[in-house]
Amino acid sequence: MDGKNTAEQVVTTGKHEIIDIIKNKTIIKNPETFFGIGDDAAVCNFAGDEKTVISTDMFAEGIHFDLTYTPLKHLGYKVVVAGISDIYAMNAIPVQITVGLAISKRFGVAQIEEIYDGVASACEFYGVDLIGGDLTSSLTGICISVTSIGKANAEDIVYRHGAKPTDLLCVTGDLGAAYIGLQLLEREKAVFEGNPNKQPQLDGYDYILRRQLKPETHKNLLTFFKKKDIKPTSMTDISAGLASEIISICKESSLGCEIFEERLPIAEETEKMCREFNIPPVVAALNGGEDYEMLFTIALKNYEKIKDNKLFSIIGSINAADKGTNIVTRDGSILPLDQNSNLAMYENI
Amino acid sequence: MDGKNTAEQVVTTGKHEIIDIIKNKTIIKNPETFFGIGDDAAVCNFAGDEKTVISTDMFAEGIHFDLTYTPLKHLGYKVVVAGISDIYAMNAIPVQITVGLAISKRFGVAQIEEIYDGVASACEFYGVDLIGGDLTSSLTGICISVTSIGKANAEDIVYRHGAKPTDLLCVTGDLGAAYIGLQLLEREKAVFEGNPNKQPQLDGYDYILRRQLKPETHKNLLTFFKKKDIKPTSMTDISAGLASEIISICKESSLGCEIFEERLPIAEETEKMCREFNIPPVVAALNGGEDYEMLFTIALKNYEKIKDNKLFSIIGSINAADKGTNIVTRDGSILPLDQNSNLAMYENI
Repeated sequence: MDGKNTAEQVVTTGKHEIIDIIKNKTIIKNPETFFGIGDDAAVCNFAGDEKTVISTDMFAEGIHFDLTYTPLKHLGYKVVVAGISDIYAMNAIPVQITVGLAISKRFGVAQIEEIYDGVASACEFYGVDLIGGDLTSSLTGICISVTSIGKANAEDIVYRHGAKPTDLLCVTGDLGAAYIGLQLLEREKAVFEGNPNKQPQLDGYDYILRRQLKPETHKNLLTFFKKKDIKPTSMTDISAGLASEIISICKESSLGCEIFEERLPIAEETEKMCREFNIPPVVAALNGGEDYEMLFTIALKNYEKIKDNKLFSIIGSINAADKGTNIVTRDGSILPLDQNSNLAMYENI
Repeated sequence: MDGKNTAEQVVTTGKHEIIDIIKNKTIIKNPETFFGIGDDAAVCNFAGDEKTVISTDMFAEGIHFDLTYTPLKHLGYKVVVAGISDIYAMNAIPVQITVGLAISKRFGVAQIEEIYDGVASACEFYGVDLIGGDLTSSLTGICISVTSIGKANAEDIVYRHGAKPTDLLCVTGDLGAAYIGLQLLEREKAVFEGNPNKQPQLDGYDYILRRQLKPETHKNLLTFFKKKDIKPTSMTDISAGLASEIISICKESSLGCEIFEERLPIAEETEKMCREFNIPPVVAALNGGEDYEMLFTIALKNYEKIKDNKLFSIIGSINAADKGTNIVTRDGSILPLDQNSNLAMYENI
């Protein structure tokens, strides 16, 4: 299916030239890559005792990104981070990705290159090989698919379903920043659309903007676990929002949990911007999404090994299923976690 | 990136329910699949001496398919066939796929299910496991990504770059049917749009319509090669059109070729419909695309082993690079193969 048979075929002409450009940006670093870009398929070595983990993500313009304020290079970087975040969430090491790009004729070769510059930059930083993909026209906008491939020893792989009662619930970094960064970008976009002479006011908000536009994932977490000889009992990355991911771990493990509002890690800049938007920071943290932090459970017996760490916070613990999935607020109320509704009322700001 | 932060989030609500439905359609058949749908990533076994081959394809509505005349189930089937066709083209056996679907709110759960019914049907027929993917909203239309994963012994893998002078150029099945089937569908669509009371006239065109709407790929070819103890020197699948794929093999192998018009396999029904459209059948065969036949080269010494086979035709041979990539017409003229222009004049029919 090469788009030859239909009228819209922007990319088909010159496709091989663009693929050559992309290939030249690609440096193969991993012994798992035997043959990369340039044939019907890539050829990989996954010999030995290790398992291979594979995940596919889709990103659609207007849903996952708005090009009004997303530089194409950042977009390329972010889709790779979002993709390999799923591999880290299995406690595995990402080694390869493929990137499929459907792109409309309003974009030229230079802009396609910008996206792949971002892809290449993320690949370099995370030690991942771009081994293939596809490049094609679309009638409207951009759609990107990322398939991420990683490796792990079978005994190291961590699923969502392994949590046990009394396990500690932990989360890396801080939460809600990507969401509130997006609200700021949306506000300035609306101001700009109302008055194109007015420049966006984005100075001084570096942290929350970076969390939205150029997120990173936690490649150090695996090293920490290895060093401390800890294996999480369950793990997932936080793409859809903390509440939704906690509910997923509890559902897959057939258990409940209790987390504490006062334990949720929220950056000062996030809190400040939440006040400006009149959004409770706890709502941004629970339901914001796109933080790409890791959520995991650790057996209570490992408490001494983790209590002083700087990578993650302990936000609660796992309970029996009949206790439900709850949050204890600062005033001591116990409320059920909700993966959607808290945020809904803020959605049209 | 879960689409939570933007207004358009048709699929997000109920996403987990739909994924459960898809999971229930999935039967794991291959020992390479250790853990399929249901976590951040699938877990696979590729131990042993075999290599793993991986390929990603993108399919965009309005470019690769027109839903006016493409049933959603056929669409799901076709994208799997197109995807695993790349694995067969490496002389490898497909074992797994992931499918990413970005779909707009004009489609409901029942229609998403139809697409996955087609995916599941192709997976069953070709013995492939659906191990994961993504499901998300799009602002407009459908975009599908398929990542296909296969296996092969290192010494069996066939690249595009291995052709040698005097090798025989071979092609499976017949050519041009998918292209002329598309022209028929486009014609009847135009008639219908001009007069919605008029029903499409598609009776008696089963073969070319099936080639366009529900193509198959050649899983028997590998068995033939094994049985005859033959390894092609180069191979690719014909997605973009015969001329373009021959040029690709010759370019990658730094060689030229000569093919013969009279040797091109064209079905009777294709020839008949080409006459109706006033398109030379040879043009449909050379530049039509989407046939998903296999193009490969075989060392001349194997001629006796292949001369009576029913799976493929010998259409020419490989030459030195300075001879160019040519077609000898029925009247004896020698013309350079052109991957684009012959068809361009017919494109607005």
